[in-house]
Amino acid sequence: MAATPIKPLMLLAIAFLASVCVSSRSDQENPFIFKSNRFQTLYENENGHIRLLQKFDKRSKIFENLQNYRLLEYKSKPHTLFLPQYTDADFILVVLSGKATLTVLKSNDRNSFNLERGDAIKLPAGTIAYLANRDDNEDLRVLDLAIPVNKPGQLQSFLLSGTQNQPSLLSGFSKNILEAAFNTNYEEIEKVLLEQQEQEPQHRRSLKDRRQEINEENVIVKVSREQIEELSKNAKSSSKKSVSSESGPFNLRSRNPIYSNKFGKFFEITPEKNQQLQDLDIFVNSVDIKEGSLLLPNYNSRAIVIVTVTEGKGDFELVGQRNENQGKENDKEEEQEEETSKQVQLYRAKLSPGHPVAINASSDLNLIGFGINAENNERNFLAGEEDNVISQVERPVKELAFPGSSHEVDRLLKNQKQSYFANAQPLQRE
Amino acid sequence: MAATPIKPLMLLAIAFLASVCVSSRSDQENPFIFKSNRFQTLYENENGHIRLLQKFDKRSKIFENLQNYRLLEYKSKPHTLFLPQYTDADFILVVLSGKATLTVLKSNDRNSFNLERGDAIKLPAGTIAYLANRDDNEDLRVLDLAIPVNKPGQLQSFLLSGTQNQPSLLSGFSKNILEAAFNTNYEEIEKVLLEQQEQEPQHRRSLKDRRQEINEENVIVKVSREQIEELSKNAKSSSKKSVSSESGPFNLRSRNPIYSNKFGKFFEITPEKNQQLQDLDIFVNSVDIKEGSLLLPNYNSRAIVIVTVTEGKGDFELVGQRNENQGKENDKEEEQEEETSKQVQLYRAKLSPGHPVAINASSDLNLIGFGINAENNERNFLAGEEDNVISQVERPVKELAFPGSSHEVDRLLKNQKQSYFANAQPLQRE
Amino acid sequence: MAATPIKPLMLLAIAFLASVCVSSRSDQENPFIFKSNRFQTLYENENGHIRLLQKFDKRSKIFENLQNYRLLEYKSKPHTLFLPQYTDADFILVVLSGKATLTVLKSNDRNSFNLERGDAIKLPAGTIAYLANRDDNEDLRVLDLAIPVNKPGQLQSFLLSGTQNQPSLLSGFSKNILEAAFNTNYEEIEKVLLEQQEQEPQHRRSLKDRRQEINEENVIVKVSREQIEELSKNAKSSSKKSVSSESGPFNLRSRNPIYSNKFGKFFEITPEKNQQLQDLDIFVNSVDIKEGSLLLPNYNSRAIVIVTVTEGKGDFELVGQRNENQGKENDKEEEQEEETSKQVQLYRAKLSPGHPVAINASSDLNLIGFGINAENNERNFLAGEEDNVISQVERPVKELAFPGSSHEVDRLLKNQKQSYFANAQPLQRE
Repeated sequence: MAATPIKPLMLLAIAFLASVCVSSRSDQENPFIFKSNRFQTLYENENGHIRLLQKFDKRSKIFENLQNYRLLEYKSKPHTLFLPQYTDADFILVVLSGKATLTVLKSNDRNSFNLERGDAIKLPAGTIAYLANRDDNEDLRVLDLAIPVNKPGQLQSFLLSGTQNQPSLLSGFSKNILEAAFNTNYEEIEKVLLEQQEQEPQHRRSLKDRRQEINEENVIVKVSREQIEELSKNAKSSSKKSVSSESGPFNLRSRNPIYSNKFGKFFEITPEKNQQLQDLDIFVNSVDIKEGSLLLPNYNSRAIVIVTVTEGKGDFELVGQRNENQGKENDKEEEQEEETSKQVQLYRAKLSPGHPVAINASSDLNLIGFGINAENNERNFLAGEEDNVISQVERPVKELAFPGSSHEVDRLLKNQKQSYFANAQPLQRE
Repeated sequence: MAATPIKPLMLLAIAFLASVCVSSRSDQENPFIFKSNRFQTLYENENGHIRLLQKFDKRSKIFENLQNYRLLEYKSKPHTLFLPQYTDADFILVVLSGKATLTVLKSNDRNSFNLERGDAIKLPAGTIAYLANRDDNEDLRVLDLAIPVNKPGQLQSFLLSGTQNQPSLLSGFSKNILEAAFNTNYEEIEKVLLEQQEQEPQHRRSLKDRRQEINEENVIVKVSREQIEELSKNAKSSSKKSVSSESGPFNLRSRNPIYSNKFGKFFEITPEKNQQLQDLDIFVNSVDIKEGSLLLPNYNSRAIVIVTVTEGKGDFELVGQRNENQGKENDKEEEQEEETSKQVQLYRAKLSPGHPVAINASSDLNLIGFGINAENNERNFLAGEEDNVISQVERPVKELAFPGSSHEVDRLLKNQKQSYFANAQPLQRE
Repeated sequence: MAATPIKPLMLLAIAFLASVCVSSRSDQENPFIFKSNRFQTLYENENGHIRLLQKFDKRSKIFENLQNYRLLEYKSKPHTLFLPQYTDADFILVVLSGKATLTVLKSNDRNSFNLERGDAIKLPAGTIAYLANRDDNEDLRVLDLAIPVNKPGQLQSFLLSGTQNQPSLLSGFSKNILEAAFNTNYEEIEKVLLEQQEQEPQHRRSLKDRRQEINEENVIVKVSREQIEELSKNAKSSSKKSVSSESGPFNLRSRNPIYSNKFGKFFEITPEKNQQLQDLDIFVNSVDIKEGSLLLPNYNSRAIVIVTVTEGKGDFELVGQRNENQGKENDKEEEQEEETSKQVQLYRAKLSPGHPVAINASSDLNLIGFGINAENNERNFLAGEEDNVISQVERPVKELAFPGSSHEVDRLLKNQKQSYFANAQPLQRE
């Protein structure tokens, strides 16, 4: 039951997908919590990277129902562009820091959005999009929840243009098909549309030179200030109204927090409030906990929540319970869950429904949570004045359920005047 | 095709989840029907018990789609209370006998219901509840269908208070977190809220003594008459109106039976008629068959029905069909299904869609059925005057489908004047 | 990237379900495309046959999400009848050629429909139906998509009447139950309703003789002209209105094609337009491509499409992409998918979302497609004037994404004046 510090700046990795099979024994004891280095780099060059958190090791059965959710972390330098591509997964993007212009293409339509910290948007599977970091100084950091539509748990991206390692969509076709499709001879098609062009047209030569000097993984490329301006000038901002447009971005903090006091704020957008999330049955929340404060012990009634620490340091306490033994089918992990609470060095966690958690901030802390099976989820607190289920227990039952008398229980419960967030180091009382 | 007697009073166990791997050959031949002793006792003391029917053995592939449904049987003596807890599963509770007060807690709300035989209610996952047997003399028997939300097929319960074998929710947290959460020093918290208190306050001493004398599994405890009265006085009864309140209990017999004659009655509540069942896509039915009567052969078009005998003795006949062989993947069980009809000693059965069943009561019989994939399910009878699909076959096709002529078929079908239920030993006719 | 000819008249088999494990290396390289001989004959006699395409070999993980879809091909001679039966699967039937009368029975209702080429209808699981070929000369060919409701990927049919190999529904019950159910003595029941009658009534003798001479698989039987007339006289035709009745047949070509020019026509009925398809979340399309024409490269954003060639010859080009390696879990098939495009002799294909396809007709071609996960699916073209996503890319991004300048890309894209379908052998241009 020791507290666990969370490393800053390794904050974008979400643990639940990490494999425990080669980690230390403490990780094996706690399948909920994982180190940040269990990810796979999909792309990387000097302009930025995309990391995919590893799918959870099938060895532990308790994550069966998360098989089809993946987390990705995207980071790019100022004035860069993530070239047009699409993936066979639905995405929820959340901007953690920086300023982006996201452009989403349909077959007969195009929409651009200027996104800032806290903006979120759903990107449907198979939709071509490109993402520019339009800021002059700050890195763009984006967190993505991906829900594959084709092969459970696996993502496949398709670039419009190609790289050495990944041919473009178009180059997959035969010459005959390409010539017929574009009504153009193949040499012209190859020169203009396909990768690795020898001769460059006079026009825009400097840009092409620059691109050829880039690492062969030219998925994230530099762009000029003028190009950024052209991309962002017609873009819409995230909706400030309480009803977001059906498919535009929404800010996680556009509505009042559902829980708030001087110790912390808890913002949540649920499917009931947002059409994009409704289709996916996911909620998204953003939680600030002030240094020296505590998110009081609580649990979700049915949602599984994937939590990422995006700023700051703190401790998680997750209460596991002894699993009902099912005979020789048991995993070793499940037996080890008998310990009541486990922490390791942490910046990501999976909160299972029914399992209470408390979070303690040793510096100002921000967390982003994705809640799966969101519909009708309830958050029940076990301490605090509001939303505290223990207070709802009737007097005769309090007498029987607890060692103390009903009167003593009530008196104890009143000691905590705060709700949701409280002082992590309160003065002692009698 | 011999009939099978059903043992009384072993009635609360539902078979479909039982493992066949160690049973006798007859069980192995019929994966639909199971003995009652294949359950796991979750709690037991002198006040009552909770039994979980075993998950079906994965060896037989035909129950794949039932992996995420579990059945539980609860039984408690008069004037006892099932202490507050929640489980990571949605439940449908059905009261088989006795009188209960069920209290359901939300974070900011509480509801109590007085339940009697035939009352049913959905308890959403993660909802704290406690259940009192408020009767002076009669045992309380409850049948539960559980649909886990976290790990398919597995249930985990969380007690507010603790036992020696299962620590409470709160004791899982560290001292620091508990002190901060409750703004109280740890000794006080431990004394009042956590288990196994040495010193007892003067007040209510007798109750505490009694509890300490109880078996360590103090999940079902004795309560006094006064406590029962306090719990039940503000409780609501199940709805007698045809539209039940959204979340209150509904009686399985509150509406007219869908089939009824002097031989039997068939009550059914479907998702269309009840919001709680709609979310789960489950119907619940209660069937009475008089001694010496027969539920005529019928099948469900798409629902899988889990049937429990709750009273009486009778015989089931289930018609299986030879499975289409798929090559070397076949299980032995599937090959053995080639026999057309199987019975063993039975008080529970799983009725697969398409497989006709007939039920024959050797004493007054009551059955409770849970139908999974309920939406748009149709029940088609193969004999009787009403709802008999064979009657719908057009004349030219009767000629071709049956050995007899269309005229002979019609004449035969008219011999049975009853619908749905009939005399199991009718007088012979010419 | 070579083109692949499609054999005519082996057109009714859909490939995606075929096992690759015993096929040639080229099949193993392309899990999308399968030979037509990988099917299982469920019934066959001189009147017709029913073939079930083999379930896909579990060895290749990429078809995991198709495990619960099966394709069947039905063919029968003029003046034959498929005897009454039901299956534990929902069906979408599509008439490929010929004229049928389909009769659908409920417990208290009956509906008959006269179906012709291009008519489609959903047949819910557990619904008894029979199907007559009412034409004098033409074979009836029907394509069925089946979605099992009981055991994933497995179908079980239940015949009202029996055959030597498959006892009827009724014969599964014991004599006692049958006598009680029908209130008739067993000898009479056996003589009139159950199979393999020794004595025949005088009336209709010739028909019975004829039937006994037939192969024991008497599931598809001959019928007389008078019987056909009786069956079809009260039948309804498919709806010509744009809103089809809730459960009646609808013609795939009853609405305007969504894409159409002199090179081809593309008709599609989506869940939004049809209640029967909405319940299943499937779309159905019918595509005509003229000889010497090409369906331009396009991909589906989220639907998986099972395509069957029903007439003609042509070539498919499917672009696969290198799969992201996940470590030692990879199948060999997945590694071999690294090649960008694969074809083999083909008349059926599975189109995965995100994977572009082009289809080239060497004779007038017709294809039927079933789209799974249809809701919100978008079809994006990569060439052509309309619905071409590449045209949507903004100027600065075109500069960066392609070797050519934005101006050059635009000029190239304008070369193709057609949309959706074009000339497969266009004149060369500068």
